[in-house]
Amino acid sequence: MFVQKVRSEGTSHISYFIGAGHEAAVVDPRRDVEEYLELAGSSELSIKYVLETHRNEDYVSGSAELAAATGAKILHGGQIPFGYGSEVRDGDVIGLGSSVIKAIHTPGHTPESFSYVLYDIANPSHPLMVFCGDVIFAGDVGRTDLNGTNARERSAGELFDSITKKLLPLGPSTILCPAHGAGSICGVHIADREDTTIGTELALNMMLNMGREDFISWKKMEELEISPIFKRMEMVNLAGARPIGAVHIADAMLPKEIKRAIVKGALILDVRKPHHYSASHVPGSINLYSDFIPTYGAYVIPTSKPVVLVADCASQVESAYRLLLRSGYDRPLGHLRGGMESWMKGGNESSRLETISAKGLMSRITGGEETFLLDVRDNKEISQGTIPGAKMVHLGKVQERIADIPKSKVAVAFCGSGPRGSCAASILLRNGFTKVMNLSGGFEAWKASGYEITK
Amino acid sequence: MFVQKVRSEGTSHISYFIGAGHEAAVVDPRRDVEEYLELAGSSELSIKYVLETHRNEDYVSGSAELAAATGAKILHGGQIPFGYGSEVRDGDVIGLGSSVIKAIHTPGHTPESFSYVLYDIANPSHPLMVFCGDVIFAGDVGRTDLNGTNARERSAGELFDSITKKLLPLGPSTILCPAHGAGSICGVHIADREDTTIGTELALNMMLNMGREDFISWKKMEELEISPIFKRMEMVNLAGARPIGAVHIADAMLPKEIKRAIVKGALILDVRKPHHYSASHVPGSINLYSDFIPTYGAYVIPTSKPVVLVADCASQVESAYRLLLRSGYDRPLGHLRGGMESWMKGGNESSRLETISAKGLMSRITGGEETFLLDVRDNKEISQGTIPGAKMVHLGKVQERIADIPKSKVAVAFCGSGPRGSCAASILLRNGFTKVMNLSGGFEAWKASGYEITK
Amino acid sequence: MFVQKVRSEGTSHISYFIGAGHEAAVVDPRRDVEEYLELAGSSELSIKYVLETHRNEDYVSGSAELAAATGAKILHGGQIPFGYGSEVRDGDVIGLGSSVIKAIHTPGHTPESFSYVLYDIANPSHPLMVFCGDVIFAGDVGRTDLNGTNARERSAGELFDSITKKLLPLGPSTILCPAHGAGSICGVHIADREDTTIGTELALNMMLNMGREDFISWKKMEELEISPIFKRMEMVNLAGARPIGAVHIADAMLPKEIKRAIVKGALILDVRKPHHYSASHVPGSINLYSDFIPTYGAYVIPTSKPVVLVADCASQVESAYRLLLRSGYDRPLGHLRGGMESWMKGGNESSRLETISAKGLMSRITGGEETFLLDVRDNKEISQGTIPGAKMVHLGKVQERIADIPKSKVAVAFCGSGPRGSCAASILLRNGFTKVMNLSGGFEAWKASGYEITK
Amino acid sequence: MFVQKVRSEGTSHISYFIGAGHEAAVVDPRRDVEEYLELAGSSELSIKYVLETHRNEDYVSGSAELAAATGAKILHGGQIPFGYGSEVRDGDVIGLGSSVIKAIHTPGHTPESFSYVLYDIANPSHPLMVFCGDVIFAGDVGRTDLNGTNARERSAGELFDSITKKLLPLGPSTILCPAHGAGSICGVHIADREDTTIGTELALNMMLNMGREDFISWKKMEELEISPIFKRMEMVNLAGARPIGAVHIADAMLPKEIKRAIVKGALILDVRKPHHYSASHVPGSINLYSDFIPTYGAYVIPTSKPVVLVADCASQVESAYRLLLRSGYDRPLGHLRGGMESWMKGGNESSRLETISAKGLMSRITGGEETFLLDVRDNKEISQGTIPGAKMVHLGKVQERIADIPKSKVAVAFCGSGPRGSCAASILLRNGFTKVMNLSGGFEAWKASGYEITK
Repeated sequence: MFVQKVRSEGTSHISYFIGAGHEAAVVDPRRDVEEYLELAGSSELSIKYVLETHRNEDYVSGSAELAAATGAKILHGGQIPFGYGSEVRDGDVIGLGSSVIKAIHTPGHTPESFSYVLYDIANPSHPLMVFCGDVIFAGDVGRTDLNGTNARERSAGELFDSITKKLLPLGPSTILCPAHGAGSICGVHIADREDTTIGTELALNMMLNMGREDFISWKKMEELEISPIFKRMEMVNLAGARPIGAVHIADAMLPKEIKRAIVKGALILDVRKPHHYSASHVPGSINLYSDFIPTYGAYVIPTSKPVVLVADCASQVESAYRLLLRSGYDRPLGHLRGGMESWMKGGNESSRLETISAKGLMSRITGGEETFLLDVRDNKEISQGTIPGAKMVHLGKVQERIADIPKSKVAVAFCGSGPRGSCAASILLRNGFTKVMNLSGGFEAWKASGYEITK
Repeated sequence: MFVQKVRSEGTSHISYFIGAGHEAAVVDPRRDVEEYLELAGSSELSIKYVLETHRNEDYVSGSAELAAATGAKILHGGQIPFGYGSEVRDGDVIGLGSSVIKAIHTPGHTPESFSYVLYDIANPSHPLMVFCGDVIFAGDVGRTDLNGTNARERSAGELFDSITKKLLPLGPSTILCPAHGAGSICGVHIADREDTTIGTELALNMMLNMGREDFISWKKMEELEISPIFKRMEMVNLAGARPIGAVHIADAMLPKEIKRAIVKGALILDVRKPHHYSASHVPGSINLYSDFIPTYGAYVIPTSKPVVLVADCASQVESAYRLLLRSGYDRPLGHLRGGMESWMKGGNESSRLETISAKGLMSRITGGEETFLLDVRDNKEISQGTIPGAKMVHLGKVQERIADIPKSKVAVAFCGSGPRGSCAASILLRNGFTKVMNLSGGFEAWKASGYEITK
Repeated sequence: MFVQKVRSEGTSHISYFIGAGHEAAVVDPRRDVEEYLELAGSSELSIKYVLETHRNEDYVSGSAELAAATGAKILHGGQIPFGYGSEVRDGDVIGLGSSVIKAIHTPGHTPESFSYVLYDIANPSHPLMVFCGDVIFAGDVGRTDLNGTNARERSAGELFDSITKKLLPLGPSTILCPAHGAGSICGVHIADREDTTIGTELALNMMLNMGREDFISWKKMEELEISPIFKRMEMVNLAGARPIGAVHIADAMLPKEIKRAIVKGALILDVRKPHHYSASHVPGSINLYSDFIPTYGAYVIPTSKPVVLVADCASQVESAYRLLLRSGYDRPLGHLRGGMESWMKGGNESSRLETISAKGLMSRITGGEETFLLDVRDNKEISQGTIPGAKMVHLGKVQERIADIPKSKVAVAFCGSGPRGSCAASILLRNGFTKVMNLSGGFEAWKASGYEITK
Repeated sequence: MFVQKVRSEGTSHISYFIGAGHEAAVVDPRRDVEEYLELAGSSELSIKYVLETHRNEDYVSGSAELAAATGAKILHGGQIPFGYGSEVRDGDVIGLGSSVIKAIHTPGHTPESFSYVLYDIANPSHPLMVFCGDVIFAGDVGRTDLNGTNARERSAGELFDSITKKLLPLGPSTILCPAHGAGSICGVHIADREDTTIGTELALNMMLNMGREDFISWKKMEELEISPIFKRMEMVNLAGARPIGAVHIADAMLPKEIKRAIVKGALILDVRKPHHYSASHVPGSINLYSDFIPTYGAYVIPTSKPVVLVADCASQVESAYRLLLRSGYDRPLGHLRGGMESWMKGGNESSRLETISAKGLMSRITGGEETFLLDVRDNKEISQGTIPGAKMVHLGKVQERIADIPKSKVAVAFCGSGPRGSCAASILLRNGFTKVMNLSGGFEAWKASGYEITK
């Protein structure tokens, strides 16, 4: 019996491949399913089940594709109307080779959330591991704000009950396998430790040491970003995603082909690091560093336009393709052949984005130069402090609130460490702003330099 | 400008990836097209054309799948009605990056055969290479017996004219890129040298040094096997094959699942080496060593039955899957988990096939033991001699002529080196024969032992 | 912070790669260290420490090679005189990126056994995981019979104290990371569950629920095989193994080259599955299925002779090379090109090993045919029962007790499932026995057939 | 029989793996030899010979390492005193499986240059292919200026004789396999066509259509760069390079570790693309884009200093490591973990390099702004024209002629397309210049913009 994590960078999503005897199950597969198929092939296991802890909100599920490739049965809660798979019920017991898996209904994060407890068939009363989706994370618990404002109190109560009546009773020695690690937008305070147990969470996770009332109050107060990706993924996942097959990147485009695509309405998405974008980019392109696609793509990449990528190397192209597919986008039209070098050598017009260091920004401010400071971080981050005088416009609102930003002043965008600031700045440039800068290293660099902060 | 060969083992088929400037073309792609996509991706080339030299008869073409994945244009001769792609005409000139490709009509092997000549755009009058499909091979020329008996003379004449009027005039320094290397059933005497030129063929290829009359006479006399795969592949390729996506082997089956499949009519195909099959196999299984699938599969594997594989290791399973797909079969149902070891440990019934060495066979014969010697090779091989007293039944006819083989005698099957003999023996076993042997090392071992041969 | 298992098949050895912040440590690296270097490279971590839980006895350590490649510091207990690395002391605290590792002396299995406890730097009082080497396994505890007969009582007492005073106090929620999984010769009853915790072991591991006296008595009674590999590996590992660099298999040999090597004293080691060996093998070769090299190689492969391999495919050659290197052998001279097929086609003499099914053996016995039944399993296995009339000669003693086995009778060797029986049979054949058989499926098949067993 | 090219990017070096029957030979192996070992392993060929066409001058030979790993025999000309391997003589015939290789002495490029002609053993009088090292290239012939000024006439005459008396007589149909493709510094006019024949070269290669006198005159006039790498590689290769084993990159360094290394004298080598370097770099670092290491590294990277790399991603680190090793450098100390992002987020000081577009430069000039235009290309390039007013200082001379460049003016460096200009600019910055720019897209962009050129 073994459990293999399959981590998806960007979303901090973790899916699990369970092998027991000659059979296997996959918990919460992502959209590109080659890795599960390879694991099954190399260990000669037959994937019998796809276990969904809930309709995932931050990535496209690969359940349907994996089931189609292997004949596996998909199980999920029946509290919402999935367009595929079978309903699992509280207490259902599933035999998987030399193991037994018990499904327990653990609502709260969503009404149809289920956890799956793994037992050795030889010791069916001692729970070894629990795959709990978004119920408990290392250091945090799942969100309860995605079922609508009215439902927050009820959701929080359900979550508390699921934790205290269903999961904690499994005992301190049970290994906990949540659907997300540190960095996910599905939990605020997810800790860096990737391997954890119920006992460790009882010791270190503040949320597991509250009374019911306090827990509900805390969760009601919690202010989290509600990314537009949530709604979109829910819809896609309820219906079951289109299959994609293998991912390939054999679609390099020449500058002239890209210009033609722009004329026909394509969006140029520059997935390079901010300072590469700042040095030189295709005019009108939006900069979103590839690692940020899962978390911020839904804010700035429309689904309605064909996309052409600009990247630094083949592996960045492939990575961006995967992350777009996992986020529910179609394949891009293609990507710029040879990167920006070939664009520039061909004599094609390119643009720059000015960057400014924390020190330089301090000089501007001290020197009294007119500056519009644009903080594009989210509320939670800003509540920890910002640069004095900054205006807050969340990255996802920059385009719609563009009229509130004065074109006459020098606009200095910033985020935590640079990429979102560069994204916001690229939106301004695309909208005809000419005096735009990105703060290198973002608020982190400002803080590290010891400058003043307001809360 | 570079040309990369992509070889397909088993068929000895060679396809070519041509990169020139920022564009690429693929000549005669096979069905599993990942390798072309990876070449295009890693070298950032855009596949603009799929060039078909003719409707291929011995493998399923990947043209349609490759075109669907890349937007490439498929070109082929219009002399027969393809269900996809575009017609190319004699003399058509195709620009491909820094190169120019000229299509020349070279009928004979088939009416729609085309060759493609590669030029550097800077020297458009000096032909660098020619992709000639089945017109000339290293050491041989294409078959002219596939257009029907009545057409043999006309086909041979056309082939002679294509060679002498279209290809030889390109000059001795032109590199020749045929669609097959040594070992193919598409040419009798294909030489071992893989890289060749028109000048080298003029020097070493007997067929290029005959007059028209002699050439036609020779080709009319030529007696070649007409594998059933030819007709099947022609039909599949005229219509355009179904896409298959990536190949995976995540479908290990347990003995009990395999037994259930047998009851429902599945064929067990044992793709291991003959002496592994002889040591122990699933009763009723047919043995065809995986490397022999492309050439002999069509004789013994029906398309009407679902197939379950028995193999030695994961890479053999994957290889067999690819070869079956390239030969136009559907994905197998699955493969035996853990190979024959798990079958035997589980206490499932297994069978053996007796083998006999050349020396042992000689003793049998000398000793006067009743033996039915079954030579399953083809006419061409047999014309070089056989074991005295052998009856000839081509491998593809063993099943239908089963009544001609006496069950009472010990039947010793043999082929060139072992695999086809084992296949024939497995068919006998499947038909209830009990006294069956395979000659280890086949006719090759007999000859190496210095025993008598009759012609 | 993440921990990645690196499993070594055959030995069931598990090493651990710990990444924390920007630093990494490797616990008990195996001899071929590419995988650790790749993990460090791809995650951009700097390997700062190699942590040895003890001088390992069943594989060659890669500590010295890994340290040479990375500059990492090797730590191990100072209770025995290592020829390399630095001494760690009970209570030593090691900073590793965002984590803290505490070394605790846990003698018993060996005097210099250390365990390493992993803490998050933010919660330095809550132990997350413990890397405990051979102190506790899932379902068992370490051996205490390797320090000599006189030391058994003291060793057992030390082990009990290490467990109860050092490890159990870490608490039920601490994840337990032992050096071996199921199948290792370093523990008798290692359970199939790979992920476990101290709490789970307290619940399910019988050895953790005994008093001190009972524990010591049990351990004193424990009869385990003492493989010759133990002594050899101890010596190699005390000194520090020679570096090997990357593993490659570019040394295919022709039959004639192999014959020349035999003349010069080389041993032919046939690492194929038993029934492949039985069908046909090089005369005089020893059969040891590659997966069995780590556990049984030391019994039958001398270090004094150069070895030439016979295998079925390239991946089996490479696997056998790795397993030999991990077991302290030098690189083989080479391997047979093209496997047994090329040997046979070349007209070289080959031998067979008769196999017999459980049913066939039963008939022999019932029919009164003279049979010498040779059970080559170890005492522990035999204590569960054997075939009536079997003589017991451990696989490792077959060669030295060859005179006790009558050449005149048919010798039927058997083990658990086949490979060791085939190995023993191959030793008999090599010693001139002519009437030798291997029981297919071994004792497992006999039992599955429902035949009589004696204890 | 097959021949597989192994191309080394950067040097445009081509080595060849020849497989024939069961044996193999490698012509001119590069220093990292894994690829040859894998080819031999996967095709089960035994590497019997390493054939050196001459002591190579532009990369470190892997002959000694490959021979050590396989037992292959190294052959090379005896006209200079190699410290390893065996001497081959004109007319020597080497059997290699089913082929025959004939060594022919073809001096001129160097005195010990040999060519190797491949024949099928069945047709030993018809030459199939010739591996000719630096005698003939596609479109050019070898250099004759590396044996000293006095020897130029004699070398050119020898080369002419080698070509006309040894190679051309092989006939037009022989495939030509030179040691370099387009882009190499070993030939001026190497054509883009990678596959060529003697007949094609006779038709298209101007150098093969001259009389002896003209040929010698032409070669004497030829003005080529003599890279410092030539002398260094000659010495290394005469002695035989140190073995390196496998290449790994498990040595990420933190900013603080890098700063410590700088203090101890390490050179920071930034191998990113020029516009990435321009956006932000470690102060004092030299920028040489990784692909340019083989050709320009010897000019600007000292062998006396330890090197630390800054790169964009893991694959760029690995590529730079390989290219440094092939160029005779030791392993770098390490590379910056997380690239420039982590450097900047950590609040470490970074620098920029201004870039200027062709249009911007034109404005500066027209506007009369004081500008020192620095053309760092080589004579051959400059002879085709440059920007009016540019001063020429070859990249390799920038450091030693630093005093000739005025610090007071804005220095605009340029090369063909950007990377060498950026390298020169980085040297200026390192020497304390503050007003430095690099021309984006280099002279190519200037020309593409249609601006004035002087010759």
